[in-house]
Amino acid sequence: MMATFESRARDGGARTGVVTTSHGTFETPCFMPVGTRGAVKHLSSVDLADLGAQVVLANTYHLMLRPGVDVVAALGGLHRFTGWNGHLLTDSGGYQIFSLEPRVDDEGAVFRSTYDGSSHRLTPESAADVQAAIGADIQMVLDVCPALPAEPDALRAAVDRTLDWAERGRRRFLDHDDAPGRQAQFGIVQGGTDIELRRRAAERTVEIGFDGYAIGGLSVGEQRDLMLPAVAATTELLPAEQPRYFMGLGDPVGIVEAVARGVDMFDCVLPTRLARHGTLLTSQGRLNLRRAEFGRDDGPLDPGFAASPANGWSRGYLRHLLQVGEPTAARICTLHNVAWLFDLMERTRRAIAAGTFDALRAEINATWA
Amino acid sequence: MMATFESRARDGGARTGVVTTSHGTFETPCFMPVGTRGAVKHLSSVDLADLGAQVVLANTYHLMLRPGVDVVAALGGLHRFTGWNGHLLTDSGGYQIFSLEPRVDDEGAVFRSTYDGSSHRLTPESAADVQAAIGADIQMVLDVCPALPAEPDALRAAVDRTLDWAERGRRRFLDHDDAPGRQAQFGIVQGGTDIELRRRAAERTVEIGFDGYAIGGLSVGEQRDLMLPAVAATTELLPAEQPRYFMGLGDPVGIVEAVARGVDMFDCVLPTRLARHGTLLTSQGRLNLRRAEFGRDDGPLDPGFAASPANGWSRGYLRHLLQVGEPTAARICTLHNVAWLFDLMERTRRAIAAGTFDALRAEINATWA
Repeated sequence: MMATFESRARDGGARTGVVTTSHGTFETPCFMPVGTRGAVKHLSSVDLADLGAQVVLANTYHLMLRPGVDVVAALGGLHRFTGWNGHLLTDSGGYQIFSLEPRVDDEGAVFRSTYDGSSHRLTPESAADVQAAIGADIQMVLDVCPALPAEPDALRAAVDRTLDWAERGRRRFLDHDDAPGRQAQFGIVQGGTDIELRRRAAERTVEIGFDGYAIGGLSVGEQRDLMLPAVAATTELLPAEQPRYFMGLGDPVGIVEAVARGVDMFDCVLPTRLARHGTLLTSQGRLNLRRAEFGRDDGPLDPGFAASPANGWSRGYLRHLLQVGEPTAARICTLHNVAWLFDLMERTRRAIAAGTFDALRAEINATWA
Repeated sequence: MMATFESRARDGGARTGVVTTSHGTFETPCFMPVGTRGAVKHLSSVDLADLGAQVVLANTYHLMLRPGVDVVAALGGLHRFTGWNGHLLTDSGGYQIFSLEPRVDDEGAVFRSTYDGSSHRLTPESAADVQAAIGADIQMVLDVCPALPAEPDALRAAVDRTLDWAERGRRRFLDHDDAPGRQAQFGIVQGGTDIELRRRAAERTVEIGFDGYAIGGLSVGEQRDLMLPAVAATTELLPAEQPRYFMGLGDPVGIVEAVARGVDMFDCVLPTRLARHGTLLTSQGRLNLRRAEFGRDDGPLDPGFAASPANGWSRGYLRHLLQVGEPTAARICTLHNVAWLFDLMERTRRAIAAGTFDALRAEINATWA
């Protein structure tokens, strides 16, 4: 296996440990910032290192269209291209493609580029090839992501096709001479909020056998009390010695509740997108810095977060920069939100190790309710 | 005098030395990045310190409209507001106002806000008051900036009104109980490219007596062979023991030629604006990174500038980020251009001290012709 999970401690259903890939190790539970087009907006690889990032995401769909896989490969692959020496993970492109309403058949999906309208085809095989060429440490198998709510028949068809594609994608990945030596590949469990469908999808995906397992098709607008049972139904069937990744989840309550159900890895554009609009993650919950009351506020963004990289500037100053559209504000708020979420993950890891995770979970639920 | 210049070395007409204000000292010749609304675009005060900035500019016009002088003052004045502990200089607002075609009479100028169309009045007295409240280390007297080319009568009238305003602005500045103890005030010599007018303006401005002297109304589109004689005609009449500042000049040839005529300080939005559009300052001259030839270029932005803060990324990567509009590209290119210009100023200071300034001047002229 090209990715393994070694547990250091468990606290109820939550676990903390170390994921090992051919690139090295990272600690979980962890949050992975999203560098859609090869950069987290407003940040460089130096900033990510300063923030203590472990794994950074990039989007296959965007990189295959701009600058193109051949360019990324010619410039040394994704690590050298971005200057980021930590772990990298690429999604399969499936999530973006399905938001474009592609023509889909058993073979794959045909979609139009949002850049120039040109037509492109992605199959389980080409997704594996493209991601091998991009060269992240972890690649994702191509899946079918139906929008929720979905009719039972549509959900079942999506799961069936995802499982078929998983088998083909895994075979193609393993057929590469060198890919297994430098990359891990994660499978994706679909099934919406249907518990039985989730179980079948999880069992069959594990039978196919991947280096890690993702929970896909959730956190797409459904209620949390429908989402969490679907998470639990999935994780309880996943092998303990492989990493587990919840795709597209980044809110504090969602994270601690998924951690409580055995999830290790998270990604989401929300913390960075919120930052650009002046919404901050703080120890008191969300704070909308654009509100007039902060205009003359000389205090820091979050008095409860002494390690924020934004603490050199007042709320009043950053509000002013936001109001007049200065990009420096988006950058500083991005640094703050990413640092805040990394700090939450660090607190989560420590709480699990100390056996105090329930207290942290209760605190986050109370603050962010 | 609240600002003095102490020469360390001369080389022909060029001089290198130290400017002292109540805030401390900075070395000249120097370039001052422009933080229009209280931030240099894409940079924070931490970035400016990392780059080795000495003096940073802010625009009175913009700050008095957003967030308002009272807010800057309530948040501790410009240093605390921006988090920048080096020197700060505010312009008088004159340059921005005159680009808005204000109603001008002997008393002052009435202009409309570009933010909300509201009407505002600026007089030599209120410009001194407003800048005292903003609290930079150096403030500029309110002047009249005619667009070039201008009719001789219009130029003469602008000089006369500028001299009248200089007297009133200086008187108001000195009437403040505390302003002289914490701020310096620079006068501005106008006169377009008319040598006789420049001389009269310089002599009379020096008679009024300021802490330093600026050359205004040049680098506004006129030919360099008309600009430089006007610079020389001004600097030769300015006191040797006060700093000299060429407003709004930032191109390498312009800088070394003005330095050769005894100028100490420069500011310009050009290096940061160019960076945001992907145009780089390099040891080989300007480089437009958006050109297709750089798409697969694995080399650094400027192989001749080993200390560039952008050297962790390839031309191909940064071109890609520019092409897809990622703000990380604007930031990295801004860091590069500002660092490159600071390096030119450092080389200029060293060359003057070593008596080799003519060789540097020839090199810059040959590269940037």
